[in-house]
Amino acid sequence: MPPRPVINAQVSPKGSLETLSQREVQQLSEAGSGSMYALFRQCALAILNTGAHVDNAKTILDAYRNFEVRIHQQDRGVRLELLNAPADAFVDGEMIASTREMLFSALRDIVYTENELESRRIDLDSSQGITDYVFHLLRNARTLRPGVEPKIVVCWGGHSISTEEYKYTKKVGHELGLRHLDICTGCGPGVMKGPMKGATIAHAKQRIHGGRYLGLTEPGIIAAEAPNPIVNELVILPDIEKRLEAFVRVGHGIIIFPGGAGTAEEFLYLLGILMHPDNRDLPFPVILTGPKSAAPYLQQLHAFVGATLGEAAQQRYQIIINDPAQVAVQMAQGLKEVKQFRRERNDAFHFNWLLKVDESFQRPFDPTHDNMASLKLSQNLAPHELAANLRRAFSGIVAGNVKDKGIRLIEQHGAYEIQGDAAVMKPLDHLLQAFVEQHRMKLPGGAAYVPCYRVVETRT
Amino acid sequence: MPPRPVINAQVSPKGSLETLSQREVQQLSEAGSGSMYALFRQCALAILNTGAHVDNAKTILDAYRNFEVRIHQQDRGVRLELLNAPADAFVDGEMIASTREMLFSALRDIVYTENELESRRIDLDSSQGITDYVFHLLRNARTLRPGVEPKIVVCWGGHSISTEEYKYTKKVGHELGLRHLDICTGCGPGVMKGPMKGATIAHAKQRIHGGRYLGLTEPGIIAAEAPNPIVNELVILPDIEKRLEAFVRVGHGIIIFPGGAGTAEEFLYLLGILMHPDNRDLPFPVILTGPKSAAPYLQQLHAFVGATLGEAAQQRYQIIINDPAQVAVQMAQGLKEVKQFRRERNDAFHFNWLLKVDESFQRPFDPTHDNMASLKLSQNLAPHELAANLRRAFSGIVAGNVKDKGIRLIEQHGAYEIQGDAAVMKPLDHLLQAFVEQHRMKLPGGAAYVPCYRVVETRT
Amino acid sequence: MPPRPVINAQVSPKGSLETLSQREVQQLSEAGSGSMYALFRQCALAILNTGAHVDNAKTILDAYRNFEVRIHQQDRGVRLELLNAPADAFVDGEMIASTREMLFSALRDIVYTENELESRRIDLDSSQGITDYVFHLLRNARTLRPGVEPKIVVCWGGHSISTEEYKYTKKVGHELGLRHLDICTGCGPGVMKGPMKGATIAHAKQRIHGGRYLGLTEPGIIAAEAPNPIVNELVILPDIEKRLEAFVRVGHGIIIFPGGAGTAEEFLYLLGILMHPDNRDLPFPVILTGPKSAAPYLQQLHAFVGATLGEAAQQRYQIIINDPAQVAVQMAQGLKEVKQFRRERNDAFHFNWLLKVDESFQRPFDPTHDNMASLKLSQNLAPHELAANLRRAFSGIVAGNVKDKGIRLIEQHGAYEIQGDAAVMKPLDHLLQAFVEQHRMKLPGGAAYVPCYRVVETRT
Amino acid sequence: MPPRPVINAQVSPKGSLETLSQREVQQLSEAGSGSMYALFRQCALAILNTGAHVDNAKTILDAYRNFEVRIHQQDRGVRLELLNAPADAFVDGEMIASTREMLFSALRDIVYTENELESRRIDLDSSQGITDYVFHLLRNARTLRPGVEPKIVVCWGGHSISTEEYKYTKKVGHELGLRHLDICTGCGPGVMKGPMKGATIAHAKQRIHGGRYLGLTEPGIIAAEAPNPIVNELVILPDIEKRLEAFVRVGHGIIIFPGGAGTAEEFLYLLGILMHPDNRDLPFPVILTGPKSAAPYLQQLHAFVGATLGEAAQQRYQIIINDPAQVAVQMAQGLKEVKQFRRERNDAFHFNWLLKVDESFQRPFDPTHDNMASLKLSQNLAPHELAANLRRAFSGIVAGNVKDKGIRLIEQHGAYEIQGDAAVMKPLDHLLQAFVEQHRMKLPGGAAYVPCYRVVETRT
Repeated sequence: MPPRPVINAQVSPKGSLETLSQREVQQLSEAGSGSMYALFRQCALAILNTGAHVDNAKTILDAYRNFEVRIHQQDRGVRLELLNAPADAFVDGEMIASTREMLFSALRDIVYTENELESRRIDLDSSQGITDYVFHLLRNARTLRPGVEPKIVVCWGGHSISTEEYKYTKKVGHELGLRHLDICTGCGPGVMKGPMKGATIAHAKQRIHGGRYLGLTEPGIIAAEAPNPIVNELVILPDIEKRLEAFVRVGHGIIIFPGGAGTAEEFLYLLGILMHPDNRDLPFPVILTGPKSAAPYLQQLHAFVGATLGEAAQQRYQIIINDPAQVAVQMAQGLKEVKQFRRERNDAFHFNWLLKVDESFQRPFDPTHDNMASLKLSQNLAPHELAANLRRAFSGIVAGNVKDKGIRLIEQHGAYEIQGDAAVMKPLDHLLQAFVEQHRMKLPGGAAYVPCYRVVETRT
Repeated sequence: MPPRPVINAQVSPKGSLETLSQREVQQLSEAGSGSMYALFRQCALAILNTGAHVDNAKTILDAYRNFEVRIHQQDRGVRLELLNAPADAFVDGEMIASTREMLFSALRDIVYTENELESRRIDLDSSQGITDYVFHLLRNARTLRPGVEPKIVVCWGGHSISTEEYKYTKKVGHELGLRHLDICTGCGPGVMKGPMKGATIAHAKQRIHGGRYLGLTEPGIIAAEAPNPIVNELVILPDIEKRLEAFVRVGHGIIIFPGGAGTAEEFLYLLGILMHPDNRDLPFPVILTGPKSAAPYLQQLHAFVGATLGEAAQQRYQIIINDPAQVAVQMAQGLKEVKQFRRERNDAFHFNWLLKVDESFQRPFDPTHDNMASLKLSQNLAPHELAANLRRAFSGIVAGNVKDKGIRLIEQHGAYEIQGDAAVMKPLDHLLQAFVEQHRMKLPGGAAYVPCYRVVETRT
Repeated sequence: MPPRPVINAQVSPKGSLETLSQREVQQLSEAGSGSMYALFRQCALAILNTGAHVDNAKTILDAYRNFEVRIHQQDRGVRLELLNAPADAFVDGEMIASTREMLFSALRDIVYTENELESRRIDLDSSQGITDYVFHLLRNARTLRPGVEPKIVVCWGGHSISTEEYKYTKKVGHELGLRHLDICTGCGPGVMKGPMKGATIAHAKQRIHGGRYLGLTEPGIIAAEAPNPIVNELVILPDIEKRLEAFVRVGHGIIIFPGGAGTAEEFLYLLGILMHPDNRDLPFPVILTGPKSAAPYLQQLHAFVGATLGEAAQQRYQIIINDPAQVAVQMAQGLKEVKQFRRERNDAFHFNWLLKVDESFQRPFDPTHDNMASLKLSQNLAPHELAANLRRAFSGIVAGNVKDKGIRLIEQHGAYEIQGDAAVMKPLDHLLQAFVEQHRMKLPGGAAYVPCYRVVETRT
Repeated sequence: MPPRPVINAQVSPKGSLETLSQREVQQLSEAGSGSMYALFRQCALAILNTGAHVDNAKTILDAYRNFEVRIHQQDRGVRLELLNAPADAFVDGEMIASTREMLFSALRDIVYTENELESRRIDLDSSQGITDYVFHLLRNARTLRPGVEPKIVVCWGGHSISTEEYKYTKKVGHELGLRHLDICTGCGPGVMKGPMKGATIAHAKQRIHGGRYLGLTEPGIIAAEAPNPIVNELVILPDIEKRLEAFVRVGHGIIIFPGGAGTAEEFLYLLGILMHPDNRDLPFPVILTGPKSAAPYLQQLHAFVGATLGEAAQQRYQIIINDPAQVAVQMAQGLKEVKQFRRERNDAFHFNWLLKVDESFQRPFDPTHDNMASLKLSQNLAPHELAANLRRAFSGIVAGNVKDKGIRLIEQHGAYEIQGDAAVMKPLDHLLQAFVEQHRMKLPGGAAYVPCYRVVETRT
């Protein structure tokens, strides 16, 4: 790979409110606490790579090995000095404003997270403590705006999808934007970008100036899925579980576009939460949608949910094929119910306190072969518990496909065994098969897919 | 005293960014941690009394014994329910916007202070730790605005002054405002209000929309000196020492108007800091000013400084009699030097990191008879140390005059003895005498002044 | 008189939208059409004298005989070059922003008036044409803001009143401002300034940023009553009649404070219009108010209206003595009715199209001795016609007191004769007597008052 | 054609400053002056068709024959009542904000134009009078913003271009937007829309909130080229010549993308003006650009200019093939020179007063057969005069191709004869030939192109 063009630059926040204490500047400087510096450097590099199409954190880190960022306190506040930064983040030598903003968002979140973790206040051992932590991170990032009616629509789906599917997400975003709705995604390319781009144009047509394009990410993913430059609010949560909880606490409705195993994992996470008995009466609009060509995919997902979690689970979402306007109309309708519900129950518009998120969804799942093999996948379980375990199974498959640690485990011990009742295993096998056939199971290098799992029916 | 008119009301923040977690709402509710509720109730009551002319916290607390405030979480954020609130805070049943804003500022500061104190982060045992704490409180209150050039002028002086002196403070504020400067005071009536009122009119003339009228207070003083309604940024620091440090860290220059023993204490606090050898080259404009009738007062203060702390101390301030425009011109000039200095030294415009505040100024002084008697008041001390001890002497006199604990001590043990070299004691006696004659020593009830101290020259 | 300090300066509009064509710049330059330049120079001088206390246009014009203003077109728009301008309009060499704004308002209005008069469009011969003209002038000045609810309160009264009366107008303005109301006056000192100053402080308390302080003036009066610097929208109407019509078309309610013969003239103008049969059902809140000391004055005025125009006329206003809050409460209530009425009749909130202003009120009255002597002042007239003639009588008295032409006429021919029925003449004589006794009849020099009129009862 | 969906609706301006007098409402109502109503109705219909792809005014007018618009005066200002309006302009029954804004822009411009024409002020017989008229129209539309640095880039080209060419215009717009430049076009689809869309995304990335997308149109063209919804400032000039002059007076630089005979006409208009001796030293950046596939087109145009107008004409523009960033870099550079020049000459940034536009370019050309035949097309002419005549020739061809009157003339009398020196005729024939081959000569119905002209070389 030829060396990429780099640039040295000084950057100050413009119109930002961020100020740092001397101690915080000290902590962030390379000489200070190394871990904090390393974390910030990594996020900064990802942000500077905005718009570049790489699938892989390692590639970026390697390509800009000499990248350095230094933090200075000065008269007008904090200033960043960047050395050997990716040249693409600049136009005629000046950093693009959105990139600059995101750099300082990263600074803010990393400093805050560190400060919080140092403090005794946070109780990460209790479910409520974790939720409180997520709340404080979002509040500090000024994501929580009291008094604004529910209009944040989360869009989930693959970051590497077909052109047709990408265009479809733009159209849906456009229709959402025409209806004054805001977009929240995981802030990479693909489904993370399309709806925001569509909404930007629609907001311009509707003369909406404060349209929100919220990107929620975490340090482990930001390099692979660099925030697209439309994102105008970036929040870096400390890990995947906090990020998922942030999605369901600040989002007022969720649209699921086509994707791979990762999208299935997210979908099962959501269903698992919504099927918890405490959430039975809580309105939460969920729509599965895609262009005509994605119909089979959506039908398979739907059939799988029906076969494993039952009809009740299917009631928690709608499927709309190839009709962007209808998606937006239904979502807008759903949001009205959310508004009504929160008003009646005195729940905040800006944070879904009433949603029960079971501790099992807040704790990370470690996909060892043992853990995978011992997942209980049986229809004897309560549906929301089965959903939790199915989510874990998909989480393991994602790890085995693309994550460093997972890949190494597979190399050592062979494919995971996933076992369970035939009534669950058959549909699962079916779905995974279909993913492979539709090329939705992607490997980092682009090689032909070899499954990292084996589906086993347990005899009863 | 006849019962005062009260009102019940619901208040929501308008356009404010404050959001609370469920836990914070819980802590603040009466059933929760009692101390936090009591503190907030007391501050809220003081704020609601804005504009009322009382000199005494106890009076207010007694007058509204049935006052209650309840905190509710609801769809659009936090809502306050007030029971038996002072009717003066409302116009035709609707709360005045500035009062509402301040209520939520108090909420913000009290919640934040509590959270911080719970955390391990803060090191209140080191000087740097205390400064850091002050920084965090101010940052959380969004008082620190990076990128804004130095223009915060602190105004100190009495809250109970003559009409002529009050009008003079308005004129000075007007001239400062015409020169685009902002005002910071301790947020009560008198000198705390006049300059803000003058600046408001001047800012209107200059079409300045974001003029800042910053009020720094603390729970022990807010009841007696309720924030005047011009204050558009209120910060409640946890105690007097933090508040004084906040003044000298965010203020870029200080104007001292006539006042009593309290003003003398503040003046000596400031001189003690500025005379620290580390601060020798640090520019910090200080102006003593007043109308013609206040000339004797200012001259006596000046003579006292000369006699005790020496000519070097007199160099740190200017005296300008009866010339508001000149005060503003000189202050504006001084601020230019501050700007230049911070730029050269890379110090923040928004927080005076380079100012050395000795730990002796950060720790409270407890005015017992023993402590007062053992104050070293001798010209053998370094001037900044003598200043520190003189400040403590005045602090004790203020306590003996008006504070509960001090008054009780005097009743028990008689007047404080303040002893020291004749070279210090004579001028001190002189100055205190003059204060009494000019009726600047006020007692809560308004009775004739009986000194709470005795000045004693030590034989050598 | 010693020469006054002057200054030379360059001024550009800041944030203003004014642009001029080359032709307009040409017209305004001294070499161009002389009359337009002279008019602009005169208004500019008056505006630069803001805050100075002179009662007399001639004094100002004499004091700054060398004052010149030049207009340049340049890259960023129009620039004014001022030579020998009053130094008071500047702070440390920089023009006060409000003054700068008003200069460009004057430019805008004078250019527009000239352009309009050149055009064939305007029909100054018809009542509707005149109203249309007033509308276009106000629209061009961006005074008409559609969609804003009725809240412009016009304040009329003397520009030279007692300190107590002045303070009272401030208090009323404060109460109006607390209730979110805006102020419109004739933009001089006294009653023209007090309510605006009070409202400025109240708007600051209510955190209202776009509070309007509308000043309506005309070239003949601007020099004597220079716009006070609180005025943030200045409109220069072409003459007194257009200005009076502007008051009643953009104002939603009117408060009348104590004043002299001029105030009486305005009051009778207003009553004359409101008593027109076409306006019978049209709500238009009118309040006469003043401090306790002004009670006799207000009672006399009230009695005079009762005796001459009858009880029906008295129904069109309220009198409130010494109760600023009550004035504001009643005005707010009256504005609600105005809003309701315009909504029902589809009349604009921003321009009172439905108000019938008879042509007799739109045309100037020339106070010659003949015209004064032949005024019909009889109870045989319809009340609104009698009001019109009484207004003319007072207009003549004002002219005979203070206007150049009037004074010369009196010198030549002696006092005016005002004749009519005893039923009208007796109360008129009474009222005028009272004005003299209360020193409300002012002469330019301040000499003892010698009446310029003689009240004569006609025999029947 | 099936009937199209229609909707009835009431529309009020939101946040707009437009107010109308009673007389203006009267004039616009159907009962009043018919021509004004008809004009407004036609423009309104075109605006409501935004986004619809029709090439033909007549089609739209026919499709919505029952469309009616009524104007009402009411409390909050003017309200429009629409009957049988195109349903596409609405989202869920509510009109899209940009459409609403444009409706009121049309109202504003039509009322103003009418008022101006009624007035005696305008001298349409002189070149300066016409320029003055254009200035007043633009000022009234608030297009002229003093104090803003030159950054309006006009984009010209075809409204019916290939997908590849369209995408290229988006990319160029994106690069312009990244460099903080604004876009001005003729406000239809194709080249009129692409650059605006690209700039919208780029402005979002650069966090620019007030980005301008200026559309200049005229009643004769608005129906065929409805303003795209990105346009956030619409101005309707009274005719083609005023519109062309508006382009060169408010635009600071011009980019020419591929197009047909119309684009050639605009290009020759521009060259004709720039080659006027008075404009020799006046900087005016002009760039011809397109994707790789458009290179032949651009080269042919270039060759034609060289062969007919000479090398000096070729010096007035650059050609950049397939390099959007370079186009933006060069344009930004050119704008710097414009800024420098206007600063030195004291010309307004917001209106190019110094540009000489010869009267021959301000007056319409009527393409009769006689006029076409007698055009002097000879190299004996001064280049700017030859350019003027060549522009007329292209204007005639456009008329013969697509305009009602032109088509009818051709049907009656056969093809136009265009005659001139071989040195001019040969290159002209060549260029036209190429246009036909590249399908850049479009007929309304889409039929194969039959030339409406015959190129004839005159013998010498």
